[in-house]
Amino acid sequence: MTVNEKLEQLRTLMKEENIDVYYIPSDDFHGSEFVSDYFKEREYMSGFTGSAGTLIVTMEKAVLYTDGRYFLQAEEELKDSEIELYRDGSKDVPSINEYLGAVLNSKMTLGFDGRCMTAAKVLGIQKFFESQEKEIQIQAAVDLPEKIWTDRPKLPDSRAFVLRAEYSGKSYLDKLVKVRDEMKKKNADTFVLTSLDDIAWLLNIRGDDVKCSPLVLSNLLITRKQVIFYCGTGEKDDKKLSNIYDYLISNEIVVRDYFAIYEDLTQIEGKVVLADFDKINFTVYELLKDRQVIDVVNPTTVLKAVKNQTEIKNMREAHIKDAVAYVRFLKWFKEQMKSGQQMTELDVAAKLLEERSKMEHFVSESFEPIVAYGAHGAIVHYSPDEDSNCCLGNQSFVLIDTGAHFLEGTTDITRTLVCTKCSEEERQNYTLVLKGNLALGSAVFKQGTTGSSLDMLARKPLWDRGMDYNHGTGHGVGYLLNVHEGPNAIRYRVGSGKNISVPMKEGMITSNEPGLYLAGKYGIRIENMILCKKKEENEYGTFLEFETLTLVPFDLDAIDKSLLSAEEITQINDYHRRIYHTIGKYLSDEERKFLKQITAEI
Amino acid sequence: MTVNEKLEQLRTLMKEENIDVYYIPSDDFHGSEFVSDYFKEREYMSGFTGSAGTLIVTMEKAVLYTDGRYFLQAEEELKDSEIELYRDGSKDVPSINEYLGAVLNSKMTLGFDGRCMTAAKVLGIQKFFESQEKEIQIQAAVDLPEKIWTDRPKLPDSRAFVLRAEYSGKSYLDKLVKVRDEMKKKNADTFVLTSLDDIAWLLNIRGDDVKCSPLVLSNLLITRKQVIFYCGTGEKDDKKLSNIYDYLISNEIVVRDYFAIYEDLTQIEGKVVLADFDKINFTVYELLKDRQVIDVVNPTTVLKAVKNQTEIKNMREAHIKDAVAYVRFLKWFKEQMKSGQQMTELDVAAKLLEERSKMEHFVSESFEPIVAYGAHGAIVHYSPDEDSNCCLGNQSFVLIDTGAHFLEGTTDITRTLVCTKCSEEERQNYTLVLKGNLALGSAVFKQGTTGSSLDMLARKPLWDRGMDYNHGTGHGVGYLLNVHEGPNAIRYRVGSGKNISVPMKEGMITSNEPGLYLAGKYGIRIENMILCKKKEENEYGTFLEFETLTLVPFDLDAIDKSLLSAEEITQINDYHRRIYHTIGKYLSDEERKFLKQITAEI
Repeated sequence: MTVNEKLEQLRTLMKEENIDVYYIPSDDFHGSEFVSDYFKEREYMSGFTGSAGTLIVTMEKAVLYTDGRYFLQAEEELKDSEIELYRDGSKDVPSINEYLGAVLNSKMTLGFDGRCMTAAKVLGIQKFFESQEKEIQIQAAVDLPEKIWTDRPKLPDSRAFVLRAEYSGKSYLDKLVKVRDEMKKKNADTFVLTSLDDIAWLLNIRGDDVKCSPLVLSNLLITRKQVIFYCGTGEKDDKKLSNIYDYLISNEIVVRDYFAIYEDLTQIEGKVVLADFDKINFTVYELLKDRQVIDVVNPTTVLKAVKNQTEIKNMREAHIKDAVAYVRFLKWFKEQMKSGQQMTELDVAAKLLEERSKMEHFVSESFEPIVAYGAHGAIVHYSPDEDSNCCLGNQSFVLIDTGAHFLEGTTDITRTLVCTKCSEEERQNYTLVLKGNLALGSAVFKQGTTGSSLDMLARKPLWDRGMDYNHGTGHGVGYLLNVHEGPNAIRYRVGSGKNISVPMKEGMITSNEPGLYLAGKYGIRIENMILCKKKEENEYGTFLEFETLTLVPFDLDAIDKSLLSAEEITQINDYHRRIYHTIGKYLSDEERKFLKQITAEI
Repeated sequence: MTVNEKLEQLRTLMKEENIDVYYIPSDDFHGSEFVSDYFKEREYMSGFTGSAGTLIVTMEKAVLYTDGRYFLQAEEELKDSEIELYRDGSKDVPSINEYLGAVLNSKMTLGFDGRCMTAAKVLGIQKFFESQEKEIQIQAAVDLPEKIWTDRPKLPDSRAFVLRAEYSGKSYLDKLVKVRDEMKKKNADTFVLTSLDDIAWLLNIRGDDVKCSPLVLSNLLITRKQVIFYCGTGEKDDKKLSNIYDYLISNEIVVRDYFAIYEDLTQIEGKVVLADFDKINFTVYELLKDRQVIDVVNPTTVLKAVKNQTEIKNMREAHIKDAVAYVRFLKWFKEQMKSGQQMTELDVAAKLLEERSKMEHFVSESFEPIVAYGAHGAIVHYSPDEDSNCCLGNQSFVLIDTGAHFLEGTTDITRTLVCTKCSEEERQNYTLVLKGNLALGSAVFKQGTTGSSLDMLARKPLWDRGMDYNHGTGHGVGYLLNVHEGPNAIRYRVGSGKNISVPMKEGMITSNEPGLYLAGKYGIRIENMILCKKKEENEYGTFLEFETLTLVPFDLDAIDKSLLSAEEITQINDYHRRIYHTIGKYLSDEERKFLKQITAEI
């Protein structure tokens, strides 16, 4: 079936349902960053395979919104269909809300599957309509593409497993006490938790339902007396539940069918409900209408971000494993380059995966690898695929942003490597980014300092020279969970409302990833993971600092020493010495010799 | 009458009114930082003369809350009365709300003059009672001390004047259009404006109703059709109004009695009202109860913070005048010191005032001068008076934080001067503070950056060494208005709700004042005023920077050059060269020679 035929079928269904405009987002029912194939309705209906995009269909027209990283790909993929590409963020392109405002007149109906839209998103659309004084009907109880997509993939059914205490560091019941404490503080009777990383963290379970994210497709209700877990069929013999069912029951968790939450929500006890409107979907929100619902950052999110001692110990081990694999990869990479062997971006990604897979307790990559040679590096979210894949040349940089999940935790590292040789300008720019990374990594700061203060340190070397990078400096990283997790973040905008910059706390693990991107030329990013720790407590207060968990050398060939202060040179040498002493012992003689070279004092 | 006798009279009145606890704050009816004598009920009733404090009287007990800077003074002043001193912020001292919660049981009545409490403060108290599930009655329509204070000063009646266009830079009517635009955006029918600096700014009037703040005691109502100014008797022949009445009428402003706003508020048209709950008093708030009141930062506050081109040009001139006076003072100071002349803190303040008063268009000091020798310097808000005044010795530092109002604008400057000689440790600490001042003053940053990012630059040299100062790094400064004004501020805590850190904008003028305080030894603060300007716009975005308006040399005797980078040395030398070239021409030969010496290259 062509895309245009699918759209015609959709319009027929829209007419039957009296829907004037139908909206197809890219989300799953949980507001996840990455989704499994079952949820890719937008891709199925539009033919556009990028991860982010919104398809809006009226009786006369179909438009696809996507962002800068996908403009070229979307043009290509949409060219045989009637769908018009709307380049989100470009001048003269209305925002999605403005577009909806333009195609919907009062009394008309906007339709979508309310389970695929967060409550916050729909409330935003409704608020926009109100500001335009338009009375738009919302029909959110329809999944029209479902009726067209006859060969739709099934819901993911990976076998969930229990994350043992040696990895989780804290029992489910201990965590539950903390969550119920937060509920009490807000006088809440019920807490509706639908974000998959929060559920996995709280229950100490993991799965494989989303690529690169070891999550379990599920929902959770916590009342004052009960905890109800909605997953699979809810039966012990369901493959999904088979390895965790007894564990759940022994913890007095009620297990029900994945979809049963939509029935249960109407009849839960209590009137005050906690829910995160950026996480619960609109259908859940509507079912809570008669309650007093308090919009909060999920208490689990806040608790999860502060790693416990076991998680911290394990995270250090995960980074040692990751570094051993990475150094082996680097040796291969530098040798290949030296000997003039042809090598593609995908080859690089494959080699890194190969080395990581050999390490004990490797689970999976923690996100789609970014290996970006030359100009590809300037495309911030570039990931190589069969079409874009290119051979590495001997000029410029290759930017490699990859990570792994181990049972001991999650890594996320970017190194920018010289391909044989680089220019003076390239070395200068690399060094400016490195200065930012060093400044943030060595920061000392008072308790109460937020990511917006810390961000300045990473950007200063660039800002001083009128340069910048158009992304955050740091994101929280989950423990064998999402590689991006809040609430900790390092960015200069302070946010607002419940998404305001939060103070950096002992135990939080965040990325430190300044960059620089020269369109059409190359990209630079240097990313370490940093653990927030207490430094000292004295008459001036409590001071915190970071420990860099990542243990992979910077590329010495890319450094312009003349731009570094004596202190920065010491920082680099100390870091490289620490790497050698920490991971040298896990390497063969030859590998260790290589490591010695690439960590040589400068 | 003794304080105890006053309290007994108060208790008799409390009984008559069925009030169990009476609360006397230090505020005026406008939430002002400084208040005129009429409003000093707390001082009259308690005998404590400090600027900040709260007196809480029950039938059995009277307690006075004040903060750290006043502990010693309060002890002394309260010692002959029954009042017990509660050291706010000390361990084991309950917060004011907690204390109220302890002395008030359900159904009891808390009394105060609602005009002397901001709406936000009372709402906070009420919320606290709610969280304790206590039903406390509020009686806010009483001013009991009024009946005791027979020789109470009159309301201030200074003659207001119009600030001419050459100083204001923008007409009242142009400003009104902007304010009404903001009202429209919020769909507001009425804007209630009671903060005195906002009113003076909007109407382009000034007065002398509050010491060091050229304000006019008044209220303002802006509806869609009308602007009503409540001031004095509202009659042309009132001294207060005599010089501005015709101006007001010609601008179609209705003039009414100062107190008439309390009658008018009940009958204004329209249902949606804008008001800043941190500024309007509780009585005003209660009169708006039947309306839909939107709590906002006053739109005038936001508009006022971005100075126009005329104000900026004038502010530069004001700082030149201030610097000329300051250099003359410095010459006198250094000569006195050298010749071993006795000199007290008050002498220093008087000499500075004398030099400033000689400058054209001098209006007044912009706040009570802080001249703090040695250990006094470590008391952050110390101001010398007859009791505390001491002679300057020849050791350590004197910290001088002073400022002036000119028709061309307002200055606020702190210099920390060596008294003859200082120790190596003192020089090191001075230099660390200076490094912070230089880093902030030379910052380059992207549009959208808030004070919380910028704050890091000023604190980094101290934080790196486990030191800190317990105050903000910068506050907005008004134009011939309050020396402290929002919303711009430089501090690492990001705030919340409507008091969140705001982006620094072109035209904002802010202080840059890192410090360091060693209790019992000395204090260091170095404060310049900085103007935010555009630096460049390029492919990475718009970059901003600061121009340092203050033109007074740092004390070279206090600098430890070995702690400075080459860049910092250049910054100091460039700054001193700029000072010499800008103000040298206004000085006598001898003064210029002195300036040459104190701005010599290092």
